Amino acid sequence: MPERVEAVRFEAGQLVLLDQTLLPNEKEFLRLEAVADVWEAIKTLRVRGAPAIGGAAAYGLYLGVREVPDDVGREAFMAKLTEVRDYLASSRPTAVNLFWALDRLVGVAMAEPGSDVASLKARLLAEARAIQAEDEAMCRAIGEHALKLFDGVDAVLTHCNAGGLATMGIGTALAPIYLAAERGRTIRVFADETRPLLQGARITTWELDQAGLPVTLITDGMAATVMRRGKVQAVIVGTDRVAANGDVANKIGTYGVAILAHEHGIPFYVAAPSSTIDFATRNGDAIEIELRDPDEVRRLGGRQTAPAGIDVFNPAFDVTPARYVSAIVTEKGVVTAPYEVNLRKVVLGE
Amino acid sequence: MPERVEAVRFEAGQLVLLDQTLLPNEKEFLRLEAVADVWEAIKTLRVRGAPAIGGAAAYGLYLGVREVPDDVGREAFMAKLTEVRDYLASSRPTAVNLFWALDRLVGVAMAEPGSDVASLKARLLAEARAIQAEDEAMCRAIGEHALKLFDGVDAVLTHCNAGGLATMGIGTALAPIYLAAERGRTIRVFADETRPLLQGARITTWELDQAGLPVTLITDGMAATVMRRGKVQAVIVGTDRVAANGDVANKIGTYGVAILAHEHGIPFYVAAPSSTIDFATRNGDAIEIELRDPDEVRRLGGRQTAPAGIDVFNPAFDVTPARYVSAIVTEKGVVTAPYEVNLRKVVLGE
Repeated sequence: MPERVEAVRFEAGQLVLLDQTLLPNEKEFLRLEAVADVWEAIKTLRVRGAPAIGGAAAYGLYLGVREVPDDVGREAFMAKLTEVRDYLASSRPTAVNLFWALDRLVGVAMAEPGSDVASLKARLLAEARAIQAEDEAMCRAIGEHALKLFDGVDAVLTHCNAGGLATMGIGTALAPIYLAAERGRTIRVFADETRPLLQGARITTWELDQAGLPVTLITDGMAATVMRRGKVQAVIVGTDRVAANGDVANKIGTYGVAILAHEHGIPFYVAAPSSTIDFATRNGDAIEIELRDPDEVRRLGGRQTAPAGIDVFNPAFDVTPARYVSAIVTEKGVVTAPYEVNLRKVVLGE
Repeated sequence: MPERVEAVRFEAGQLVLLDQTLLPNEKEFLRLEAVADVWEAIKTLRVRGAPAIGGAAAYGLYLGVREVPDDVGREAFMAKLTEVRDYLASSRPTAVNLFWALDRLVGVAMAEPGSDVASLKARLLAEARAIQAEDEAMCRAIGEHALKLFDGVDAVLTHCNAGGLATMGIGTALAPIYLAAERGRTIRVFADETRPLLQGARITTWELDQAGLPVTLITDGMAATVMRRGKVQAVIVGTDRVAANGDVANKIGTYGVAILAHEHGIPFYVAAPSSTIDFATRNGDAIEIELRDPDEVRRLGGRQTAPAGIDVFNPAFDVTPARYVSAIVTEKGVVTAPYEVNLRKVVLGE
């Protein structure tokens, strides 16, 4: 039976990463021992997706201090730890989860002033493993909650990749699909190819296919027709950030999909680890949208597909207003409107 | 000052076609004298767009009988004409306008039983030129009518290519843009790249840029954000076929754009030569949608962008229900709902 491919694992003293830049054409694992290689892998998107980046960075930090002699003393060790932390943090300065994971490991070391270097190293590796285990559990919990929403659902549509390859577990948006499969139930996924970077075409289809799960690839412009023909009964996507009022920032194209789902009476679900819910951001208007390199739109696969130099508008993300969101599925439970109140209730227990 | 590039022209005894398969990277004109080369150009989409194909076929038919000796007699000439007509018709059997243009020339020859071969040849060339002139006039008339709808419009969004390169004139959906420019008024075009075949990226941006007109390229998934940010005040697209009730078949992705426009309170206009209005088709449900080669979606620019063999849903067109259409702009005037009544009134004069 086919098995889910793991994006990040730590095995025999090596950080093993699937090189996602080679997808879908090659399935190659990097076996890393040097922190510089981990830095490069994060920088060049060989590993992507907030949880997966966090996990890779945590193991990377451990690798970066593993060779420090046990007899250097605690102070020298902590100095080296901070140095490696800063170095890894520079690999992708906009990835919030990267900082979170690195600082969690540094914090653990700081919280144990009595430990010797050997113990600290063991403690750091254990913490990295804990991050991985928590991520796996988070994914499964989101999957369980989402699956409760999928009664009578034979097929879903998704955008971009919020699957296993973005996490260290079974993904967020795709988690209910993997869980259903474990229980003998098949839910087909219609995957938007997700221009410009084609995460849907390159990654979502690939990971589901590797796991032996049914997936149908469409271009982004076909989503409306897929809905109109009744081919899907739900939409589920991931998110980069959810504002306190339930507005959802996610890969460009998500907002349009949400409107199309609304118009066709199809529920639009957002799978959101509680770490992505940003109570400090009141609403989507406060989320700054990065404009990316025009050549992502003008070129593809090294080939010019539009006139060189033509004007391009290339926002990385869009914001879906909360009114189009049927439910936000966190690992702590399903949140429905009014989000302003219910996100705090479910996520913060207020 | 930059000038509009012509897709089809007849010059010095040659059919001159812009080879649109080379866009946007090369601007190369084919100078054809042999009917087999015209057949190949239509077959391989070097010329595309219903009006442009019709025009190329008409000139091609003339080229195919031009060398027939004047003394063969009328009967032999007509036999050859029919043979070349059938040959050219086989180049792209689903292109309605191809048949229409060929049969119009054959009809003209049949309607002149008294003419000798030399006169018939001249008559055929004149008829091909008439088709071209009528197409040019049709484009300008659509442009005039559409421009009346563009008060206060600084920018429009379009999908696919219904520009000059799809016609022998200034296009249909893009006609008001060219007309406005002639009058010193600038209307920016946001061009959906239009996956899978990228007609927006490759052709719409190119032709507008060649004409010195402002154009901004986006991926299809960015249209919703462009609308939400107020960057466009109207949408205008072309069509392959309009049903009697105003349902509109057009390039895949159009239907989604129409819903997005509706949701953002932006008018959605369809530029439709009256030849595309099919009163024999009651509504959009009766329009059969061709499913195309999965590799159009799995590959891009000759490169594998999704796993080989992955399931794909690749409809060539979609149908936009009439309720999302703010107006249908024909060369005979602007038609608004109820389309069932008003299309007949404006187009047929009933």
